[in-house]
Amino acid sequence: MSTEISPLAPKSYPDMPVIEGVRFSTAAAGIKYKGRTDVLLVLLDEGTEVAGVFTRSLCPSAPVDWCRANLPTGRARALLVNSGNANAFTGKKGKAAVELSAGIVGKAVGCADSEIYLASTGVIGEPLPADRFTGVIDALVAGAAAGSWLETAKAIMTTDTFPKVATRTVDLGGTPVTLNGIAKGAGMIAPDMATMLSFLFTDAPIAAPVLQALLSEAVGGSFNAITVDSDTSTSDTALLFATGKAAARGAPTIADVADPRLSAFRTALGEVMLDLAHHIVRDGEGARKFVEVRVEGAVNDASAKRIALSIANSPLVKTAIAGEDANWGRVVMAVGKAGEPADRDRLAIWFGDVRVAVDGERDPDYSEAAASAVMEQENIAIRVNLGLGDGTARVWTCDLTKAYVEINGDYRS
Amino acid sequence: MSTEISPLAPKSYPDMPVIEGVRFSTAAAGIKYKGRTDVLLVLLDEGTEVAGVFTRSLCPSAPVDWCRANLPTGRARALLVNSGNANAFTGKKGKAAVELSAGIVGKAVGCADSEIYLASTGVIGEPLPADRFTGVIDALVAGAAAGSWLETAKAIMTTDTFPKVATRTVDLGGTPVTLNGIAKGAGMIAPDMATMLSFLFTDAPIAAPVLQALLSEAVGGSFNAITVDSDTSTSDTALLFATGKAAARGAPTIADVADPRLSAFRTALGEVMLDLAHHIVRDGEGARKFVEVRVEGAVNDASAKRIALSIANSPLVKTAIAGEDANWGRVVMAVGKAGEPADRDRLAIWFGDVRVAVDGERDPDYSEAAASAVMEQENIAIRVNLGLGDGTARVWTCDLTKAYVEINGDYRS
Repeated sequence: MSTEISPLAPKSYPDMPVIEGVRFSTAAAGIKYKGRTDVLLVLLDEGTEVAGVFTRSLCPSAPVDWCRANLPTGRARALLVNSGNANAFTGKKGKAAVELSAGIVGKAVGCADSEIYLASTGVIGEPLPADRFTGVIDALVAGAAAGSWLETAKAIMTTDTFPKVATRTVDLGGTPVTLNGIAKGAGMIAPDMATMLSFLFTDAPIAAPVLQALLSEAVGGSFNAITVDSDTSTSDTALLFATGKAAARGAPTIADVADPRLSAFRTALGEVMLDLAHHIVRDGEGARKFVEVRVEGAVNDASAKRIALSIANSPLVKTAIAGEDANWGRVVMAVGKAGEPADRDRLAIWFGDVRVAVDGERDPDYSEAAASAVMEQENIAIRVNLGLGDGTARVWTCDLTKAYVEINGDYRS
Repeated sequence: MSTEISPLAPKSYPDMPVIEGVRFSTAAAGIKYKGRTDVLLVLLDEGTEVAGVFTRSLCPSAPVDWCRANLPTGRARALLVNSGNANAFTGKKGKAAVELSAGIVGKAVGCADSEIYLASTGVIGEPLPADRFTGVIDALVAGAAAGSWLETAKAIMTTDTFPKVATRTVDLGGTPVTLNGIAKGAGMIAPDMATMLSFLFTDAPIAAPVLQALLSEAVGGSFNAITVDSDTSTSDTALLFATGKAAARGAPTIADVADPRLSAFRTALGEVMLDLAHHIVRDGEGARKFVEVRVEGAVNDASAKRIALSIANSPLVKTAIAGEDANWGRVVMAVGKAGEPADRDRLAIWFGDVRVAVDGERDPDYSEAAASAVMEQENIAIRVNLGLGDGTARVWTCDLTKAYVEINGDYRS
């Protein structure tokens, strides 16, 4: 596990306001290690609505199955997160463990088990000793408070080197409402340590179907537009909870996703998720460079995104960036291998503001010095114009360094 | 450029017989560096038939375009290969350069330009100074001889740490015929240095359409079943030349791909191509482990291959192998992210002969010690059974080490 904080970590953290109706507490349940904080309980007041998006893996973890199954009710009263064990690829034992976990929390909170949301991160394939939650649940419930969001974000870290938080306060029908988010993740996955989890909380009174529409809409340009290593966790989970407490202060209840009063909230949700997604890339295992890949002129947006991800996932592009090498030939290669419509003779490529290739050839004004100067920066922008249509996409990634190999080549600890 | 020979290199090389009708010579044309062998000319006697397969990149190099355009004639008289410049992403200048190259060789050999095959490997995006071939072409033609295949294979190396050759002699209708192959490649690509090229030569009298059918059939299980880094070159080329000289010794002319007399030759072609493909993986940049991934029980063979490549391309699987970590959770992850039909609860996974997971759970008899012992070997076999159907596939890859990052993170030299 890395101890050095990523050089790409933010220099400061925002003040995270209290969200009425949300309380949390943490404990050491001894899931894998003794004496280490490994459980987070978030209590949500009655009336909380919930939405979720999950890994596209066809081998999802037991908690992902559990959340998906309960989401149609749209109601949530608690979220239990553990680290040290992902409860993934655990078969019938995994299903029994989530049922036991939800039962323990549901009983302590006094609600239906189906209102308990679960997320696990850690070793895959090991049965989760869910009975250990029994020993800490009363203290967790009793200790729940509107405490420090930054400490809460720290409690769900695994290989993360810094906590990830973001917040916005926006107007909803004349009343300010707040949206807070926390996340963890440092590789897109290391099933034994670094799954991506994100939990978002708002006091806005927004109905579950609307929340779900907003969350699904925002995920494409944020959590689904980042890649550290092209690998996808069995446990990736993003949940959005709305306590509705702002209604008491006059906020209107929103039951229609087309409601124009949602405009600012919709933007804020996109921003908070993008902030958190960028933090995950900035904490990418071994990352030294933060890279934006922008593709324009593709036949459509979906094609642009596939090309952008082909560039962002290419080990040869990522190692070139690590080596501060303005190797645009590898970008051409990655465009070519994407399998999407592309015309070599219309392609143009920029590193930062330096155009390195145009009309299928090296730019006539190409300057190695200018391109190399861009590569020495901490933030690198790669732009590709395909010259075919109006499709655009942006994705974010980091470089591929020896430290990535070191972190992921170690024996499981 | 790496100087240390890969630890996975073969301990010895086969004796490569003469192929009647094939002569070669090399020269230093100063394409990029002075005084370094950078051109290989292979002369082919009149009557030589040819087949080819090329990169699937949508941004192919000018020589790939040239070969594709001329292949329908089925005739070849010479092959010119240069290193130091890939003539890829060079626009109209690239097209002019291949025309000039073919013209220079065609004139010296005394044949149609369309009978000249071209392959280039090296820096991408730099115009190829094809006029430099003029200064060496007469010496190349005059010096062409049935020389050492091993030296010829060395002449086309770039980041390769050892030459790649393979040979078989088999019966064709009662007469022995020989098939020799050489290849280069160390990453699936580094467009500035390490494209995969392979050239195969036989004295068997086989018509071009039959050669093409055999080559296309064999490539799926060999060159298209290996991956070093998931990156695909703009220049990948495999050409198969048949001089037909064995006809003078009584070999029958084969004009039908269904001819039963082809049986041994078909097998030999598959074996030679697989040998060469394995050599490329064994010379994978930074490789310390040779890995076979076998997927069984998929819904069909195509699905099995996509899952096998998802495993073989996963940075997390490959770093785990580098770390000798029996991290089968990452194999589950890679199966899950492939997007192919898979049922977590039917999945079984083996490292070598050690079954580590079965029925969606860790194997009840799982032994970390036994699994770890497998990972310490130089050759690692990963087997996955999906339990869904009869689809199978085998692909080969290597581990992902710090040396890979080092080799590819260096500035272009």
